[in-house]
Amino acid sequence: MAGLQISMLRTPSSTMKHGILTRRQSAYPLCFLVGRESHPYSGLFSCQHNSIPAGILPRGTAVYCHKSEFKIDHFGFLEDGTFKQRYLVNNEHWDQKGGPILFYTGNEGDITWFCNNTGFMWDVAEELGAMLVFAEHRYYGESLPFGQDSYSDAKHLNYLTSEQALADFSVLIRELKRTVLGAQKSPVIAIGGSYGGMLSAWLRMKYPNVVVGALAASAPIWQFPDMVPCGDFYKIVTQDFARSGLNCDVNIRRSWKAIDNITATDDGLQWLSGEFSLCSPLKKTDLDGFKAWLQETWVNLAMVDYPYEANFLQPLPRWPIQVVCKHLGFDPSVVSDYQLLGGISEAARVYYNYTGNCPCLNTSSTATGNLGFIGWYYQACTEMVMPLCTDGIQDMFEPQDWNFQAFSDECHSLFGVRPRADWADTVYGGLDIASHSNIIFSNGGLDPWSSGGVTRNISDSVVAIVIPDGAHHLDLRYNNEYDPHTVLSARVLEVKYFKLWITQARKLQIPG
Amino acid sequence: MAGLQISMLRTPSSTMKHGILTRRQSAYPLCFLVGRESHPYSGLFSCQHNSIPAGILPRGTAVYCHKSEFKIDHFGFLEDGTFKQRYLVNNEHWDQKGGPILFYTGNEGDITWFCNNTGFMWDVAEELGAMLVFAEHRYYGESLPFGQDSYSDAKHLNYLTSEQALADFSVLIRELKRTVLGAQKSPVIAIGGSYGGMLSAWLRMKYPNVVVGALAASAPIWQFPDMVPCGDFYKIVTQDFARSGLNCDVNIRRSWKAIDNITATDDGLQWLSGEFSLCSPLKKTDLDGFKAWLQETWVNLAMVDYPYEANFLQPLPRWPIQVVCKHLGFDPSVVSDYQLLGGISEAARVYYNYTGNCPCLNTSSTATGNLGFIGWYYQACTEMVMPLCTDGIQDMFEPQDWNFQAFSDECHSLFGVRPRADWADTVYGGLDIASHSNIIFSNGGLDPWSSGGVTRNISDSVVAIVIPDGAHHLDLRYNNEYDPHTVLSARVLEVKYFKLWITQARKLQIPG
Repeated sequence: MAGLQISMLRTPSSTMKHGILTRRQSAYPLCFLVGRESHPYSGLFSCQHNSIPAGILPRGTAVYCHKSEFKIDHFGFLEDGTFKQRYLVNNEHWDQKGGPILFYTGNEGDITWFCNNTGFMWDVAEELGAMLVFAEHRYYGESLPFGQDSYSDAKHLNYLTSEQALADFSVLIRELKRTVLGAQKSPVIAIGGSYGGMLSAWLRMKYPNVVVGALAASAPIWQFPDMVPCGDFYKIVTQDFARSGLNCDVNIRRSWKAIDNITATDDGLQWLSGEFSLCSPLKKTDLDGFKAWLQETWVNLAMVDYPYEANFLQPLPRWPIQVVCKHLGFDPSVVSDYQLLGGISEAARVYYNYTGNCPCLNTSSTATGNLGFIGWYYQACTEMVMPLCTDGIQDMFEPQDWNFQAFSDECHSLFGVRPRADWADTVYGGLDIASHSNIIFSNGGLDPWSSGGVTRNISDSVVAIVIPDGAHHLDLRYNNEYDPHTVLSARVLEVKYFKLWITQARKLQIPG
Repeated sequence: MAGLQISMLRTPSSTMKHGILTRRQSAYPLCFLVGRESHPYSGLFSCQHNSIPAGILPRGTAVYCHKSEFKIDHFGFLEDGTFKQRYLVNNEHWDQKGGPILFYTGNEGDITWFCNNTGFMWDVAEELGAMLVFAEHRYYGESLPFGQDSYSDAKHLNYLTSEQALADFSVLIRELKRTVLGAQKSPVIAIGGSYGGMLSAWLRMKYPNVVVGALAASAPIWQFPDMVPCGDFYKIVTQDFARSGLNCDVNIRRSWKAIDNITATDDGLQWLSGEFSLCSPLKKTDLDGFKAWLQETWVNLAMVDYPYEANFLQPLPRWPIQVVCKHLGFDPSVVSDYQLLGGISEAARVYYNYTGNCPCLNTSSTATGNLGFIGWYYQACTEMVMPLCTDGIQDMFEPQDWNFQAFSDECHSLFGVRPRADWADTVYGGLDIASHSNIIFSNGGLDPWSSGGVTRNISDSVVAIVIPDGAHHLDLRYNNEYDPHTVLSARVLEVKYFKLWITQARKLQIPG
């Protein structure tokens, strides 16, 4: 998921250096807004922003947007206020006699965007007789606990935690079961991707009474301190480029020095700005930011290296890294800095201007505006402490250590809070998750976030599915004619587990 | 556990009527303080209130009292303060090469008192080569997040929740494993009784990465709205009296009306005050409080109806209800109100003056001062909403419905907070706990709290042990020559499960 990546991509000290957050606050992608992809169900995706009361849900008609009142603070009683949380419901295929509920645990962004980008749920709804629910995560989209003030200071941000979000989801599921006729005994399966996948897994771990199982797609639940090596993420990005074209990774690794060389002069700066068609000409002080923007571009490409044309973070061709690498096939022993950066600019345009509608490139953002950058950054600055680092040898980036203290200081100056490095490990179990049950961790071999994912079976019922040709939660997307067979098999297996969990749940059901 | 009972005993509206909380704030038992019971290990119980730093713990010497710094708020980042939490450690028998840790999850009171009253852990330490840790619950004993201000208002009380306490325990266990040489791979078993038992079970449910299993003794995790009938608790109290002497329950049931009859006149009031040797003469306005005090006395007796002399809530003879009932064997068809209340006063004296040192009876309290009444009342007013009711037919008390709204209003006027009736069910799973593992729920057949306990096996590894002759967590007490065989068998079985969990944990241990 882009927000996850975009905020976490930078190692903390690079974030500081480049002032990414400050830039992000003021700017969103210039050239496009992610719209609705074309697919067989497009009629269903016109999410209506109605605030109709929960109750007996109308059947057979598109997606209904609901809002329900939830406690702002589930874990304390002083703050007794409530807020309206948005969720989308489709019950077109739902078997009203206790058919299952597939419940998307929303992540750091507008829930309609996740609703539009989780075709898997729509593809399997009929087979399972399932109701689909997409629940928005608090502090994102329209689910703002304090309205426009939600992000105003640390006091208002204090309820933006994964624990509060999980409690929201649990309360919502119980409310649906209580109020929707026929849903009382519906087994609920949590589904999510990226941070949403982490939430799905954690929802099953913490509230197994509420969901009978979870599909956690591309969920880096181990990308926390002392769980996995901090450099694996960028190694995978590098491998994606290395396998997609001759010398592709080597030339990107060389490009950083070439940027330094060329921008040593004002003429060079001017040339580079022109070569990249930058909306704002580069200044000497922008260089770190420019490099960070490029680095993030390569990472985003690794995440969305899908086998068909798609528009997730940006509209892109099929296997976009292969297209990118066509511009980076130079013989590294002879290519000049100007040639090399010319190639880099062409490569960047594959990502930013595939549609050809973008008059200039804006280095202040790299992806869709549907994600909540500041919210995610706050979460990274509190619970979601995910070390990343580069060494420039096993990866194609400039070396950058993980520096927790510097990160903590930056968080304190930005938000007035400090991250707790150990908390996620304590509260969510870290590597020690064997006592849980009914969780699928799916990961794509191309996805850099698989570095922090669970890619081996933990037990009979906490299982891993690896999709070698898959990028970031490819399995959650619609079926597509260009899908590799590995993702098709993964989806079949996922549905098989769903059916098993549903059967189990019905057997265990408490009478009455 | 007394605090649990004392606060929950009264149905909410009776609490309001009688103003119990107000009385409790100012008064503690007059005649005695619970001291250290005599037992073979008494030398070990002289808990020293040293604040020695955590680290390599000294071996072989009594109990060491430590204090460790913990976050006041684990679930938010605005309040970043810490407080000192007390815990007691004994490592006399600990096998320093990864021997297990038996971890008492402290409940609503001074931890030294629980340390003194959980002889089972001391009895089995050597056999298991176990370290013993007794962790104090925040807001009780010496573990006050805001010192003397901790109870000053709703703002300071805001962090008194079971979720925060569980997080404290988890953080403490991880800290012990990190800092105590040899403990890194020690399997930890949670043990607790009453509310402490609920915490043990919940600790295993919510943090299975931290504890490998839990013994939840007399833990009424189902005494929440819509889980069990609210009247069962008082039915069990009544049965205890019915089985302990002819007409015993019948005469208590009659006594309420006798009190009304006699106190209709000032002379009667005076007579009753004299008959009971009350420290303060009864007034007409005290009558509801007087009845509540008596009711609580019978309930306390039911909880501590142990087969040998003991001093838990009060110093008492063996099988104290049998002794009580010797004073209540009147033929109900002929006994006069005066005779009956004479018997009741003798019966009350069994509970309040077994030592003979009590010059007068104080109706403002019923048990040890080691429990935190106000703290527990706050918890009852927020999360721990436990409906109790009486009908006067199936029980020996005056009829009293469960009235949530009245309770909520009372909580609001006392603390400025309102209870959330459904929250415990949502967060701790309610009746639906089958997906968890390695939890023993032990309950005594005599214990009124077994009404809300788990008394049937839920799965192969979430199991129930019922001790027919047992009162409130008898199994957690020292072995005693008068122990019924059922409690001896229960303890043997509990240790068998401990060993199984320890073996399982060692097999599953993550290398490194």
